[in-house]
Amino acid sequence: MPEQAEPGTAPSDPGAVQAEPGTVRPGGRTARVRAAVLDAAGDVLAEQGFAHLDLADVARRAEVGKTTVYRRWGSDTGLVADLLADMAEQSLPRTDTGTLRGDLRANARLVRRTLADPRQGALFRAVIAAATCDDKTSAALRRFYEVRVTEWAPCVEQAVRRGELSPGTDPAAVVRAVSAPLYYQLLTAGSAPTEADADQAADAAVAAAEAGVYTV
Amino acid sequence: MPEQAEPGTAPSDPGAVQAEPGTVRPGGRTARVRAAVLDAAGDVLAEQGFAHLDLADVARRAEVGKTTVYRRWGSDTGLVADLLADMAEQSLPRTDTGTLRGDLRANARLVRRTLADPRQGALFRAVIAAATCDDKTSAALRRFYEVRVTEWAPCVEQAVRRGELSPGTDPAAVVRAVSAPLYYQLLTAGSAPTEADADQAADAAVAAAEAGVYTV
Repeated sequence: MPEQAEPGTAPSDPGAVQAEPGTVRPGGRTARVRAAVLDAAGDVLAEQGFAHLDLADVARRAEVGKTTVYRRWGSDTGLVADLLADMAEQSLPRTDTGTLRGDLRANARLVRRTLADPRQGALFRAVIAAATCDDKTSAALRRFYEVRVTEWAPCVEQAVRRGELSPGTDPAAVVRAVSAPLYYQLLTAGSAPTEADADQAADAAVAAAEAGVYTV
Repeated sequence: MPEQAEPGTAPSDPGAVQAEPGTVRPGGRTARVRAAVLDAAGDVLAEQGFAHLDLADVARRAEVGKTTVYRRWGSDTGLVADLLADMAEQSLPRTDTGTLRGDLRANARLVRRTLADPRQGALFRAVIAAATCDDKTSAALRRFYEVRVTEWAPCVEQAVRRGELSPGTDPAAVVRAVSAPLYYQLLTAGSAPTEADADQAADAAVAAAEAGVYTV
């Protein structure tokens, strides 16, 4: 899951994710081109879906030479894979509230905020839909979630050390359990989860973890 | 979720769902035409995805007149909506094992079996992908899950009456909690859930329900 940095709140690189006019990422021309192209690709995905992702169109929107885009990304699936890699890099660091419930609620609210955001929610739906029929996108999506799970797993490991959960609890399983109901609602009910849904998802993961369901 | 009747195990209408040569549903020519067309539509969705669903192609595969298909279903989205309605009608009745955990594990295993089935899993991925960019399909998918949740909700209501769960537990929330991690795994990790995953999903829903997470 893709905590897009929100303007003013991103910890390390504010403005890098939002495509604001004049915003540049550090790193020179290559990085600026990448940022512009990925922003444009994200816009197309969110507005029109994967089927309409066209490299020439993305180049035009990003005001970048078509040849550059074809040479660097090669194909629509290459572009989506790099977009997901960038989203993983930009995802917000985990929260440390001192309790498992606090940490998982923070996690759930971040997921919820992303899925409920019109652009980000549409972008995720588009990428997940594309992954159902394209192996390269599916692999990129899987890597994205692996990065995210790795970022949040220490919340569970700390809870084990604090004695909140039994040793042997699988951190990845707990982190995935928080996201699952929120994505399920978005994808099968077609509605964005609310903050109450997010808290419920976190509380359910805590209850199941405490009951030893994720102990291996 | 779509418990496809398995050959020989369907409670009321064996063979109606599997497209076996010579298999007919009761109900005369109209019902036979519908069965043939929906089987063909399901095959196309599972093999090629929603983008390739073409009414003329479906008519040819079903050996039904093109005009009949266009007149009766109108469009690709009309066809998917009717397919989902049919899958809801054909879905297996709930299990009654006498305990909440037994019932929810049976439910989770049915969901898992469907999602892990090559044709059915691909069909669900295709329909969920289509629902991300088509309102009519999204509405049909929502109705499908409503039917399924309604079928399984009594497991939770009985658990409340038996004193296994507190009054005020939301049956729909518990039933959805069982499915969520299985769909999440299929859609974001791209892998079919195992029986152990199914049992874990059911056990997590039981633990959360027992902890009062789904109490309204």
